[in-house]
Amino acid sequence: MAGMIWERNNNRASDEIRDIKITTNYTMHAEGSVLIECGNTKVICTATVSDKVPHFLKGQNSGWITAEYSMLPRATGSRNQREVSKGKQSGRTMEIQRLIGRALRTAVDLKVLGEKSITIDCDVIQADGGTRTASITGGYVALAIAINRLLKSKFISENPLIGNVAAISVGVVKAATVLDLEYEEDSIADVDMNLVMHKNGEFVEIQGTGENDTFSRNELNKMLEIGEKGIRKLFELQDKAIETTELHNIEKLYSL
Amino acid sequence: MAGMIWERNNNRASDEIRDIKITTNYTMHAEGSVLIECGNTKVICTATVSDKVPHFLKGQNSGWITAEYSMLPRATGSRNQREVSKGKQSGRTMEIQRLIGRALRTAVDLKVLGEKSITIDCDVIQADGGTRTASITGGYVALAIAINRLLKSKFISENPLIGNVAAISVGVVKAATVLDLEYEEDSIADVDMNLVMHKNGEFVEIQGTGENDTFSRNELNKMLEIGEKGIRKLFELQDKAIETTELHNIEKLYSL
Amino acid sequence: MAGMIWERNNNRASDEIRDIKITTNYTMHAEGSVLIECGNTKVICTATVSDKVPHFLKGQNSGWITAEYSMLPRATGSRNQREVSKGKQSGRTMEIQRLIGRALRTAVDLKVLGEKSITIDCDVIQADGGTRTASITGGYVALAIAINRLLKSKFISENPLIGNVAAISVGVVKAATVLDLEYEEDSIADVDMNLVMHKNGEFVEIQGTGENDTFSRNELNKMLEIGEKGIRKLFELQDKAIETTELHNIEKLYSL
Amino acid sequence: MAGMIWERNNNRASDEIRDIKITTNYTMHAEGSVLIECGNTKVICTATVSDKVPHFLKGQNSGWITAEYSMLPRATGSRNQREVSKGKQSGRTMEIQRLIGRALRTAVDLKVLGEKSITIDCDVIQADGGTRTASITGGYVALAIAINRLLKSKFISENPLIGNVAAISVGVVKAATVLDLEYEEDSIADVDMNLVMHKNGEFVEIQGTGENDTFSRNELNKMLEIGEKGIRKLFELQDKAIETTELHNIEKLYSL
Amino acid sequence: MAGMIWERNNNRASDEIRDIKITTNYTMHAEGSVLIECGNTKVICTATVSDKVPHFLKGQNSGWITAEYSMLPRATGSRNQREVSKGKQSGRTMEIQRLIGRALRTAVDLKVLGEKSITIDCDVIQADGGTRTASITGGYVALAIAINRLLKSKFISENPLIGNVAAISVGVVKAATVLDLEYEEDSIADVDMNLVMHKNGEFVEIQGTGENDTFSRNELNKMLEIGEKGIRKLFELQDKAIETTELHNIEKLYSL
Amino acid sequence: MAGMIWERNNNRASDEIRDIKITTNYTMHAEGSVLIECGNTKVICTATVSDKVPHFLKGQNSGWITAEYSMLPRATGSRNQREVSKGKQSGRTMEIQRLIGRALRTAVDLKVLGEKSITIDCDVIQADGGTRTASITGGYVALAIAINRLLKSKFISENPLIGNVAAISVGVVKAATVLDLEYEEDSIADVDMNLVMHKNGEFVEIQGTGENDTFSRNELNKMLEIGEKGIRKLFELQDKAIETTELHNIEKLYSL
Repeated sequence: MAGMIWERNNNRASDEIRDIKITTNYTMHAEGSVLIECGNTKVICTATVSDKVPHFLKGQNSGWITAEYSMLPRATGSRNQREVSKGKQSGRTMEIQRLIGRALRTAVDLKVLGEKSITIDCDVIQADGGTRTASITGGYVALAIAINRLLKSKFISENPLIGNVAAISVGVVKAATVLDLEYEEDSIADVDMNLVMHKNGEFVEIQGTGENDTFSRNELNKMLEIGEKGIRKLFELQDKAIETTELHNIEKLYSL
Repeated sequence: MAGMIWERNNNRASDEIRDIKITTNYTMHAEGSVLIECGNTKVICTATVSDKVPHFLKGQNSGWITAEYSMLPRATGSRNQREVSKGKQSGRTMEIQRLIGRALRTAVDLKVLGEKSITIDCDVIQADGGTRTASITGGYVALAIAINRLLKSKFISENPLIGNVAAISVGVVKAATVLDLEYEEDSIADVDMNLVMHKNGEFVEIQGTGENDTFSRNELNKMLEIGEKGIRKLFELQDKAIETTELHNIEKLYSL
Repeated sequence: MAGMIWERNNNRASDEIRDIKITTNYTMHAEGSVLIECGNTKVICTATVSDKVPHFLKGQNSGWITAEYSMLPRATGSRNQREVSKGKQSGRTMEIQRLIGRALRTAVDLKVLGEKSITIDCDVIQADGGTRTASITGGYVALAIAINRLLKSKFISENPLIGNVAAISVGVVKAATVLDLEYEEDSIADVDMNLVMHKNGEFVEIQGTGENDTFSRNELNKMLEIGEKGIRKLFELQDKAIETTELHNIEKLYSL
Repeated sequence: MAGMIWERNNNRASDEIRDIKITTNYTMHAEGSVLIECGNTKVICTATVSDKVPHFLKGQNSGWITAEYSMLPRATGSRNQREVSKGKQSGRTMEIQRLIGRALRTAVDLKVLGEKSITIDCDVIQADGGTRTASITGGYVALAIAINRLLKSKFISENPLIGNVAAISVGVVKAATVLDLEYEEDSIADVDMNLVMHKNGEFVEIQGTGENDTFSRNELNKMLEIGEKGIRKLFELQDKAIETTELHNIEKLYSL
Repeated sequence: MAGMIWERNNNRASDEIRDIKITTNYTMHAEGSVLIECGNTKVICTATVSDKVPHFLKGQNSGWITAEYSMLPRATGSRNQREVSKGKQSGRTMEIQRLIGRALRTAVDLKVLGEKSITIDCDVIQADGGTRTASITGGYVALAIAINRLLKSKFISENPLIGNVAAISVGVVKAATVLDLEYEEDSIADVDMNLVMHKNGEFVEIQGTGENDTFSRNELNKMLEIGEKGIRKLFELQDKAIETTELHNIEKLYSL
Repeated sequence: MAGMIWERNNNRASDEIRDIKITTNYTMHAEGSVLIECGNTKVICTATVSDKVPHFLKGQNSGWITAEYSMLPRATGSRNQREVSKGKQSGRTMEIQRLIGRALRTAVDLKVLGEKSITIDCDVIQADGGTRTASITGGYVALAIAINRLLKSKFISENPLIGNVAAISVGVVKAATVLDLEYEEDSIADVDMNLVMHKNGEFVEIQGTGENDTFSRNELNKMLEIGEKGIRKLFELQDKAIETTELHNIEKLYSL
């Protein structure tokens, strides 16, 4: 992209995403389990299926998708105190897990899912920017694998998945519009935006913040353009990971 | 706006804001005190000045603006349990107060403010949609009045205010793009977006969520247009409220 | 009163209450809603009716009245931290809301009310002494209005109200026995007493504390005398407020 | 007392206190340690001296007396859950310990005590009504013994004790005014009043509540009369217990 | 024991336990109530019978034994803050009460007990080392008395007690292997071990920790030997206390 | 081992440990980072160095080692609620992390370490029995690597490591004494024992519990024998992992 007067790590172009690696069946117990690596950011996403739904949905023939997010204390450069030792989650954690949950619910027809809950746990084991977007992108893969197991084992008969959901960050760093910010870039960004999109090409969520500056309509449009491009790439990687996942343990998976 | 197939309360046009009333000096103790009424939504915003700054700013010659948000239990149609009786704030409350704080910090040059904190308390006494945007719009007025008192009483010599910040909600309701949603509209909206803008005409924050649906680039653009229009009206009302406020108790205001 | 060697604000006599203003239907959602102003002390009291009773009353054909009390952070001269951020209510808050609940329960025949709960929320938006007594006095009005709505809408057929309950503070300040203390007086009082009385002329609760001094039987008697006089005035104001309140929204009020 | 139509346990007269036993030096570590038994009510009261004062008293040459109150889970007929497992003290506990602290502070000239804190811990090991008044009466003895140790060991040179403080309950039970209620009486009382008095013959605190009924001026006067009589007896017992206490371990007591 | 180069208080031999005193029916409300004194360590142990079992045992025809442990704030040389004021139990408290519960469950055939819970509350009123082992030893006595009451009152027909459980500490102090450490010894011990044994002569639990040093197989064996000897003595004292306890209030005891 | 009448997974002998794999430098930020795999049990252990010591060690020229332990929600067959959502750590978690900390402190001469703290975080990403012993064994490796970095980068000049510490579980399962129990074995074990040993051949900690049965001196001896054998194997694996670890980022490691 014209005008970038500084160089990104690994010679990344301003509109280029980091190397993405999605390892499925990463841990053995969960119905869906994924390690997603976006550059140095690494998140374990698991999907747990339950036949209980939250109170407000009881008897409504509707399922639910929810998410929880956490970081290991030393996922970051300096150690973060565990949230349990403060007795409660931070505002940041709550914001992130609410976002992941909202995003992934749009991937599923909850009526078709029926009275089941799927909890997506996103645990960051190494952080280098973009942990919430990696959680959404990887969380979708864990969710899809869990649903495929439910289908294969005939616990559900119709596929409730509507379409992929993936997310990426964009921002304005030193006057350049850049895609998929590393921590080093994120920490000096003037504008920081998280985009969540649906495979239908529309937006699920836009959260843009002028951290150190305001941003114009024009800058917004540039960010949306490179963001869309990055997310299309993520849809491809999600599909490939899901298709190549062996659905073992069908007989055990649904211990509910 | 063409295509609205339903009627809003009070015959409001789709791009028309509700009646706004800003009462300053609403309570007597705070350095800045405002009751903002946006239709039936009523929020008390107070600004408290302190000469302590958070730990991470100590000795850095920089001030801080922070916000807290709460609703009276019966501000809404059914009673909400007080958060203190659950022992902690909900994720929704934390998200909202973090948003208000971020937004209002962009209205102030924190270096010019110097080592002072200003806390904006936003307490909703009656809710009918748009409480977070009303809090930002009213919170700015309380902030500006507090700063004017600091100036008049010579506790600070230079004005740290950079420019108004105000906020409004937009959304897609029954296929129509509408401005400043009441609760009744908000609860059935397919898309819900909160816009925070700066008097320089740029964005401070965009938070758009497809609650029940995704949204297209085209719908986004329509929402931004009517949102900008609404916010320009709010800037006028803010300025008028601030200009006409009597700055009494100058000698007592700064009890720090 | 003989012997007062100092002057009260607004030339108030030692046995004179402050200007009282009771605004009913102050907010729109609650079954009963009141703003009570006692001089500069302002409290929003709302009554919420529910058809659930506490565990210990289930199946006993008896209703319940309970109260909660809180102050906005900047209701006072310096800002108080919100209780939710400490994770629990202070001893002072719990004492006050237990007192309000006990007092208002004596105004109602709980058997006649039947298996319903009424919660009185008292939120102080401006404090200048006497917030707990104002909460009781205003809380009774909110309670009575809610009950009148229940009667008018035929959700209950018999009136469970037994008689007004109101409260006032009395004390010994600089050797004078005074009624209805402002904050300035309260903070230097040697003795501080809160009286809660029933319209039958008897006591519901007496809480007298020698803050800086002990007090004699004689001083007690003087305090009781002027207290009774003040409370009789409050009964009149309560009755007038209740009688003149329009009971709108009868069809919607009882959403239980 | 004329008119009592029922019989109290052990043929107690309506104005007669239960058997009181005060065992000093009950446990070995505390500066003052007392087991007070009022009938079947048994409370361990300890006084701990510290040379730290609360934040609000630092540098003011004033001491502080505070109290904490708790019951063993099986001090009562049915087991009470420990407050720690609920994460916080109940409103009842907070009310009681605030009362004990206020009462005992009036027994001491805090300026003469100097920058020291004394914490009175009141732990009920068996409950049969009147635990808060027993805590005040026994707490005073623990306090006085701790102060006598401070004097004997010359950590303080002037006696800060002003005069005994003791407390008793009175009430109206089945139309009779009775002194020092057992649990069985307390649970059916129409009026329940706790009196705290100073050896100067004046009141420190009066807390009277119409639990099931209101009460008249006349009933109030009767309760105050028998209460005063009971408390005079308690002063004697306190003095005797304090005078006969051996002040051992003087060299170790003040480990601060 | 050969090689002890220092002298214990009261000329205790290295393999000698302190004076033990077990007072039953110490408080009046609990189904079983014991004051156990091991030297200066004093613990009140009560047993409360309930006909509720924990969730995981419902409908399984099995009973449950659980324990809770606490210390009065001034049970020790310096005052410990109450755990409730920190909002949660310390790790030490949880470890201890889990140990007591596990130990006492092995004394009972839970199937024979049937769907009943017995809660053993251990409240240390004076501490001088060995509070957790005293709690187990005294807790067993309270448990046995409660069960004897259940039998005598015919609430259960078969005795679920399998055999005594008792506990003692052993350690290595200044190179000597010693039994039943006082606080003074415990605080300088190189190795600290708690032994819980069953009357069948086998171990229920061994918890040995090299506090300041590691320990050899040989040292372990020596500690086990003197430990076993001490515990045999405790079994005798338990039996004697249980046999001589009058089981009054049979008609009232089981209020469930 | 003679007498085992059942077969272990993978034909393991009763005194054989599972396959152990230790991957060092597993994550990039921590001073020491290890993934330890003991069969299907997988724990990430990181060591964080800080130049702050706990309050009780300030100014004493002594360092500190502490540990924290947690499990990802879906490390196990069914999902565990995050501890933060309950607001506090469970007793089990506290017990385990106290054990890990005590064990690792014996590996280090805290005086030689000087006023530095090292926090060992043990996060179980997959559980199949033996997570606490794997945490100790892997935690020692993370600790040693962090210390080697401190030495190489000359932040400390003398090596504070005294000798390896490792741990293993032993137990009695269906009458056989077995080493290194998997979850399937652990859940039916009659006796469960965790052994922590020091490279000097002595014990650091022994924690043996008769879960469903008591155990004899003879069984104890058998368990100790196979436990010691297993731990000697672990010492070898620890040493090999430490020796082959590249100490990169020396210049950045110590961000304190």
